[in-house]
Amino acid sequence: MTAAATAARPAREATRVTAALAARAAALRYDELPRDIRKLARQCLLDFLAVTLAGAGEELTRILLAEAEEQGGTPAATLIGHARRVPTLQAALVNGAASHALDYDDVNMTMGGHPSVPILPAILALAEAQGASGAALVTAFVAGYETLCRVGALVAPGHYARGYHNTGTVGSFGAAAAAANLLGLDAAKTAAALGIAGTQAAGLKSMFGTMCKPLHAGKAAQNGLFGASLAARGFSSREDVLDCPQGFADAESPDFNPDPALAEPPGGWHLRNNLFKYHAACYLTHAPIECARALRREHGLAAEAVREVALMVESGAARVCNIPAPRTGLEAKFSLRLTTAMALAGLDTARLSTYSAANAGDAALQRLRDKVAVEFVRDWPHTLAALKVTLADGSVLAARHDSGVPAQDLDAQGSRLEAKFLSLAAPVLGDKQAEQLAAAVAGVDELGSIAELTRLCVPV
Amino acid sequence: MTAAATAARPAREATRVTAALAARAAALRYDELPRDIRKLARQCLLDFLAVTLAGAGEELTRILLAEAEEQGGTPAATLIGHARRVPTLQAALVNGAASHALDYDDVNMTMGGHPSVPILPAILALAEAQGASGAALVTAFVAGYETLCRVGALVAPGHYARGYHNTGTVGSFGAAAAAANLLGLDAAKTAAALGIAGTQAAGLKSMFGTMCKPLHAGKAAQNGLFGASLAARGFSSREDVLDCPQGFADAESPDFNPDPALAEPPGGWHLRNNLFKYHAACYLTHAPIECARALRREHGLAAEAVREVALMVESGAARVCNIPAPRTGLEAKFSLRLTTAMALAGLDTARLSTYSAANAGDAALQRLRDKVAVEFVRDWPHTLAALKVTLADGSVLAARHDSGVPAQDLDAQGSRLEAKFLSLAAPVLGDKQAEQLAAAVAGVDELGSIAELTRLCVPV
Repeated sequence: MTAAATAARPAREATRVTAALAARAAALRYDELPRDIRKLARQCLLDFLAVTLAGAGEELTRILLAEAEEQGGTPAATLIGHARRVPTLQAALVNGAASHALDYDDVNMTMGGHPSVPILPAILALAEAQGASGAALVTAFVAGYETLCRVGALVAPGHYARGYHNTGTVGSFGAAAAAANLLGLDAAKTAAALGIAGTQAAGLKSMFGTMCKPLHAGKAAQNGLFGASLAARGFSSREDVLDCPQGFADAESPDFNPDPALAEPPGGWHLRNNLFKYHAACYLTHAPIECARALRREHGLAAEAVREVALMVESGAARVCNIPAPRTGLEAKFSLRLTTAMALAGLDTARLSTYSAANAGDAALQRLRDKVAVEFVRDWPHTLAALKVTLADGSVLAARHDSGVPAQDLDAQGSRLEAKFLSLAAPVLGDKQAEQLAAAVAGVDELGSIAELTRLCVPV
Repeated sequence: MTAAATAARPAREATRVTAALAARAAALRYDELPRDIRKLARQCLLDFLAVTLAGAGEELTRILLAEAEEQGGTPAATLIGHARRVPTLQAALVNGAASHALDYDDVNMTMGGHPSVPILPAILALAEAQGASGAALVTAFVAGYETLCRVGALVAPGHYARGYHNTGTVGSFGAAAAAANLLGLDAAKTAAALGIAGTQAAGLKSMFGTMCKPLHAGKAAQNGLFGASLAARGFSSREDVLDCPQGFADAESPDFNPDPALAEPPGGWHLRNNLFKYHAACYLTHAPIECARALRREHGLAAEAVREVALMVESGAARVCNIPAPRTGLEAKFSLRLTTAMALAGLDTARLSTYSAANAGDAALQRLRDKVAVEFVRDWPHTLAALKVTLADGSVLAARHDSGVPAQDLDAQGSRLEAKFLSLAAPVLGDKQAEQLAAAVAGVDELGSIAELTRLCVPV
């Protein structure tokens, strides 16, 4: 509590983990990125812009905007979806919160949270302020992504289980590593950036259901950018924040897996395990929705022909998204029965407006919903669903889907993401500009300045 | 990790602790403050300004200033010691870090940290921006102080022991409560402010010895002010962040003492237990220094007459401040032997420049230092010291002091603080303006606008 405790502490060498992660993040160059990694980075960027444009009008974003307005400052970075520029740290905060406002952003199971929303707001703001190139942005993003997944693995599962929201805590390290890469910091300063970010890292899981949940993403972006910027200016910190006594892992997780190999994904890139959300509902409804979509697609299933529906999911979903007869749009997002019915009936479950009180109260949908019986199975993957539909003629159709398995066909994934993007971006930007922005993302690796992209992120 | 986890969580009632603290902080009015509490608040303010002016020129402050400069913004609040105004959140951050830069600021053992440095930067900035009165500032300070001590008691000792720096974590609640009181928030919005601040609260003890330690104070001030400001705008949060499952106490401390009576100090005011630092050295050297000063004062002890010196302190100090033959000014601050010798020789241990390489290398001081034998005692209060000086004529003088006991004579304490203030403030502001600022603090309760005080905090 006082400086007292400092003096006689024995000096400790930085152990391997923080130093290794910092060295890796600092060293990453665009030329080293495999083609599919570049493509995945562009897909994350496109998806991030989609969900941020959609979240830009949310009440929580408006509150943060009003606060930023009052603070004022150098108009260095774009507020996505708003014709306004603010200081970089404010842009990181507001865009970060907006991007997680709808909980429609991407997921990584190793990180145990949402990887893009802490990273991209930080480096988009920084890249715009510095006139950095698109390739530099892509590289920094991958550096941040790979860092935060490894940090997540190092403190799993105890960190999340103890009550921390990894998007806020683990996310801060990703933002710092990405910003450090973009600033061209060396390994030692990158380690200091991780230290400054790590000692600011926060976010309680008990805040789920309040505006603080998306705030965590914004704070992670802001704190990470701040940490990298301070480190660049020579601000001092420990260089072993992850592994030192009373460091991040020691203080904030009962688990610590300091063997770097444990944090290495097959093939060397965590980005290959990124999961996108295609439905604006609880992630545990995604596999059932995908089953229903498959039956429609492969068998031309029509809702009127359905006699009964049996859905099997892992038992944890019972406590998460099993509202049997939802009445509001929000409740609809957490109803296995209604979301399955919506998908069987061919509604666009990617569209935000699908989750409405009107649809929740629609008589035909309710009849279909009431034909769905949910069976909860123990010890399944919690992202797995099996659906069996019995038709009026007695025939049976079946499908099975695991929404925790990353896509193998990246082009197909790209098409789906483009559809999601246009669905979310067009209402804010108009069809034409939304298409221009999608094209800018597709060509981001070639952009001389990221400002050519960010200028398309505001309605003109 | 996704919104999924929110839906089916059973609603929990806000339990008593957060609600009680919020109600108390929101309700506190100036008229309720006893006379000695007002006086103590003024003493904390004077001491805060002293250490902040002294820290304003430190390297870490300059780095944060450069960052703030780059971000820019509305010049709403004064940077203490700098002829510059910045946005309120920047002022809270930079002044907060500057105030803790020298580790010379006040202490509260119940809070387990430094109470004034997270609170005052937040509410000075807010009060200046809003044109609030001095009485409003005093009231808000007390509301914050009483809140953070109770939060500290609720999570002691496990929170600090696990690795958190209470000044950063627990301090955030104090800043939020103080700012909420100043903004006139009701109990519910004050609880939301505590929630928003609590989910941002961070700071690792492993950062001691780096610039991140003072940064924690600045972040606590900034996050607390931010939380209160967002709550005022209607940003949502849990209203039971301290006591809810996976809330602050549950996630961040193995100890939780939810009986509010445990957090109540004798007499009802934690502020009465505030401890000031009068020597610019490690807090565990303070009791030995006070013993030496007493012997000089009461017996006219002269350094030349000393034959040998026996110092007894608690054994924990052996790991904290027992550098036997320091060479630098910083090492001198952590040397029981040299600081005792300095005080026996009549050096001004309040003055920063006393802790110099020149004094560490001074031959006469070294001879006196080498006459000091330190004996470490188990199971003493760690703030207690006993000093026995044997003179050349064989006579023995003895003194005993516990630096953990709050002063009983507030007027005497006020005189000492004024001397400390002038010693630290005059080099920055000049003698005359330093005296004017001290007079403004003495009359702060009557100030119609706190701006009349903050304008004196910058060199003209």
